[in-house]
Amino acid sequence: MAIKLGPNQYGKAEVRLVTVTRTGDVHHLKDLTVSTALRGDLAKTHLTGDNSDVVATDTQKNTVYAFAKESPVGEIEDFGLRLGRHFVGEFGQITGARVTIDEHGWDRIPVGGRPHDHAFSRSGEEKRTTVVTIENDRAWVVSGLRDLVVLKSTGSEFHGFPRDKYTTLAETDDRILATAVTAQWRYQGSGIDWRTSFAEIRRILLETFATKHSLSLQQTLYAMGEAVLSERGEVAEIRLSMPNKHHFVVDLSPFGLTNDNEVFHAADRPYGLIEGTVLRDDAEDPGPAWL
Amino acid sequence: MAIKLGPNQYGKAEVRLVTVTRTGDVHHLKDLTVSTALRGDLAKTHLTGDNSDVVATDTQKNTVYAFAKESPVGEIEDFGLRLGRHFVGEFGQITGARVTIDEHGWDRIPVGGRPHDHAFSRSGEEKRTTVVTIENDRAWVVSGLRDLVVLKSTGSEFHGFPRDKYTTLAETDDRILATAVTAQWRYQGSGIDWRTSFAEIRRILLETFATKHSLSLQQTLYAMGEAVLSERGEVAEIRLSMPNKHHFVVDLSPFGLTNDNEVFHAADRPYGLIEGTVLRDDAEDPGPAWL
Amino acid sequence: MAIKLGPNQYGKAEVRLVTVTRTGDVHHLKDLTVSTALRGDLAKTHLTGDNSDVVATDTQKNTVYAFAKESPVGEIEDFGLRLGRHFVGEFGQITGARVTIDEHGWDRIPVGGRPHDHAFSRSGEEKRTTVVTIENDRAWVVSGLRDLVVLKSTGSEFHGFPRDKYTTLAETDDRILATAVTAQWRYQGSGIDWRTSFAEIRRILLETFATKHSLSLQQTLYAMGEAVLSERGEVAEIRLSMPNKHHFVVDLSPFGLTNDNEVFHAADRPYGLIEGTVLRDDAEDPGPAWL
Amino acid sequence: MAIKLGPNQYGKAEVRLVTVTRTGDVHHLKDLTVSTALRGDLAKTHLTGDNSDVVATDTQKNTVYAFAKESPVGEIEDFGLRLGRHFVGEFGQITGARVTIDEHGWDRIPVGGRPHDHAFSRSGEEKRTTVVTIENDRAWVVSGLRDLVVLKSTGSEFHGFPRDKYTTLAETDDRILATAVTAQWRYQGSGIDWRTSFAEIRRILLETFATKHSLSLQQTLYAMGEAVLSERGEVAEIRLSMPNKHHFVVDLSPFGLTNDNEVFHAADRPYGLIEGTVLRDDAEDPGPAWL
Repeated sequence: MAIKLGPNQYGKAEVRLVTVTRTGDVHHLKDLTVSTALRGDLAKTHLTGDNSDVVATDTQKNTVYAFAKESPVGEIEDFGLRLGRHFVGEFGQITGARVTIDEHGWDRIPVGGRPHDHAFSRSGEEKRTTVVTIENDRAWVVSGLRDLVVLKSTGSEFHGFPRDKYTTLAETDDRILATAVTAQWRYQGSGIDWRTSFAEIRRILLETFATKHSLSLQQTLYAMGEAVLSERGEVAEIRLSMPNKHHFVVDLSPFGLTNDNEVFHAADRPYGLIEGTVLRDDAEDPGPAWL
Repeated sequence: MAIKLGPNQYGKAEVRLVTVTRTGDVHHLKDLTVSTALRGDLAKTHLTGDNSDVVATDTQKNTVYAFAKESPVGEIEDFGLRLGRHFVGEFGQITGARVTIDEHGWDRIPVGGRPHDHAFSRSGEEKRTTVVTIENDRAWVVSGLRDLVVLKSTGSEFHGFPRDKYTTLAETDDRILATAVTAQWRYQGSGIDWRTSFAEIRRILLETFATKHSLSLQQTLYAMGEAVLSERGEVAEIRLSMPNKHHFVVDLSPFGLTNDNEVFHAADRPYGLIEGTVLRDDAEDPGPAWL
Repeated sequence: MAIKLGPNQYGKAEVRLVTVTRTGDVHHLKDLTVSTALRGDLAKTHLTGDNSDVVATDTQKNTVYAFAKESPVGEIEDFGLRLGRHFVGEFGQITGARVTIDEHGWDRIPVGGRPHDHAFSRSGEEKRTTVVTIENDRAWVVSGLRDLVVLKSTGSEFHGFPRDKYTTLAETDDRILATAVTAQWRYQGSGIDWRTSFAEIRRILLETFATKHSLSLQQTLYAMGEAVLSERGEVAEIRLSMPNKHHFVVDLSPFGLTNDNEVFHAADRPYGLIEGTVLRDDAEDPGPAWL
Repeated sequence: MAIKLGPNQYGKAEVRLVTVTRTGDVHHLKDLTVSTALRGDLAKTHLTGDNSDVVATDTQKNTVYAFAKESPVGEIEDFGLRLGRHFVGEFGQITGARVTIDEHGWDRIPVGGRPHDHAFSRSGEEKRTTVVTIENDRAWVVSGLRDLVVLKSTGSEFHGFPRDKYTTLAETDDRILATAVTAQWRYQGSGIDWRTSFAEIRRILLETFATKHSLSLQQTLYAMGEAVLSERGEVAEIRLSMPNKHHFVVDLSPFGLTNDNEVFHAADRPYGLIEGTVLRDDAEDPGPAWL
């Protein structure tokens, strides 16, 4: 009945990196939260406290900042690949790395109708994300977005569900459908234009949410994923997590008022939570991409 | 040495109200968080638990929802005034009311380049706010915004401050200036176009932040307030609270690298906090507007 | 129609200070979040960016850390008084200071039934708080607590409230009463034993909440404040803010089940919010204590 | 190049359930946050919006509340098993369920030195957790705790780590070690006394953290897991996630002061993050327990 060390990793989480680059008077901003995690043969530190294999998390943080200076950060996928490959290439005992990056958006402040050179306002809570996994000489990229909050005020129904002794929900052919989309898609192939791919996938997700008549949030989720795969050959698989942020029609009848889907209570908890994967039949094996 | 009841109020906080109105196929969304608080002669419930004067907070919540149906919500200032006047007018013992409303923004999702009729995405964490105070037959309106996060990557200096034995900060003639603006302005006069006024004040705040060369965050704050008062005669007074969200230049010299304001660490805590009021010499008395 | 600078202050917010002191092998921990704000004649920096009067917020932070070394931190009220008096005494243009401190609790980890010398676990989210205000050579101390979450599963009624056309709430003679107490009390007099006073006031608040049969949350609030003033002569005034964290009896009748106050839904929003002051007839003037 | 539906599940998240049971005048409280997720053949709703297989998330919520009445909730593991088995047993198309429960602690308020019958205060932010997975007629239980914040003010070293060109961290033989423990352990076997097991595992984790002299957080993590497995035969595997909540010694030398591990800055971000698994050689296969 021996006891042993199983899977493990360690790193520095949530390094807050902001970079400014200049094209003449015009400044460009990158605002990232970077987390690195290293894997490999790390038994010694766990079993005896011998740290000769432990690349300090402080060193990982320093590396993030130094790399941001040594060459332009560029797209978060490229930055993640550079960082991950560095750690695995530099240290023999480190055989795997996972680099997770959130990108926070900024818009230029308009002044007199023109975008300002060096003044910005935060564009919202939505994040562009990537998780890069390196294992020896292979790499996987899973990119996505988070906190994209959307709502349809019609075009959503929910009926035909089974009724048991605990069922009280009324069927409806018109309801508010609201959610905060978390999407993660796994890339395959090479030579991907990360920026364009992200922008197009985001557009497809939004347009499909808007235009797909919804009989269930599951149907909407699948349609969003299917549309991405149909249009973007570089995506092998997409995973979506979509809370059903309930908007309940307030019962105004005690006050002698009708409420024809006009006045809603936006509830906090509980909420539905719909999670699903859409993928290609012939998708490459994901390996450790999702671990 | 008698003990007595001092100032008090009670109400329902954070009623999450969403309304949908329709112009043909085009839907319009209002997303509000409404809090009501009532004041008056409420000694009985405090001293004996006699609730004959206590308009239940549940009733206050119901009133918010019913009013949202009885006539269009309109601007948050008007909705707050209607609610506040109702409570003070309806119940003799209620002599004052404070209605606080946050408005959450939504944008139409663009589909094929055209804004969709009934699909929306959340426009960010910034809120438009109002606090309406009613006292007997008088009313005060303090409107504002919150969580407007802005950043300048240059055009900000900080030097010439006194140095004592605890001072280590270096002087700088070029730094990132970042803050999350909370602004509240007190209106005076009547016939105010709330929507236009809000939009213009927001524009002035942003443009001034962007264009005012800053020698201190205090100077920026004052300039923002002064610009609002100069251009908007309906504003008697503006109060600004602006955290100095520090972005520290990372020391890359241990790695043989220079860092000419290119790579920054965005710190969480501590942060500077600058708070100030700008007002007219002849501003009307604020009464209970800020209580 | 001149525009002018009104009340203002600035400082460093949320300095996270942890100190360790040693009595032989036994370690003692203080975990504080300290915010300082300075007031005075600060027109120059606002109007022209001349910072010769601006004690940098970085210097304020350094002072907090240095003071924590120069003598034992002691009770948060004493530490706040030392810091505030330093800033007002050291800099002629600084005529006022407000020092706000939250203290986070830690318990010793029990090992084999004995409290460990130097290992601790966080005791909860409740904070002990103080706000010290210095104005020239005077001082005010307002101490308190925050996030003290309490619940009574019986001994609470609510009925007899007025009913208008928007009232639907049923009367009840048995409900759950739950709240998160925020209390702030203003001290008067001198020679106060801060630690004992805090412990006693906290005990009185809890015992009164537990034992006072409640006909309304207002009555409970007043009883809690009155009990503190009755027993603690050093308190001039106490302000309480108590959200009514609603626990709704779930309607189980559709499932053929009764629910005799056994199964509840703990709601997030909206919530009631009850705020009140209890004070002595002859309380000293509060001056700027609450600003 | 067909596109298909991959793994998916859906359910109701964060049902806030509070129950009161009575033994004479003495009340007992359970405060749970329950999330249910169902799995099975759910292709129809995804592909066509046919909901005839979709047990509504509202029904799932109702079931949680009804079950809390139909028999005593008991230990969260038992409640999760009852709920999960119900969903899988009741609906043919539902072949799997995952029930996640957080339990929030309450202490009795002491009055005159005696614990009160029906008044409680929240005992902190730490949660007892369980994740129960049902697949057809099999069940897996993974229990744990979250937000157990602990700190050692000595007995922690960190040195001997490799130094590359990006390493600046100094070695130390005495530092503060602080973390917020998230632990999840997988049970095996049957007839487990959930309550005793939880209490003992929590005690072992705390005692090991306190007493194990630490050369790295990894070593502490492994020791904590190993101690649990050594003493508790019902645990097959334990996974620990422990952020290194850095406490930096403040440099007071500019002020002519020494700082012999007395004054610390508690940093927010970034933080180290150490994650690891400790398991038995002969642990049962985890199946879907961790999915």
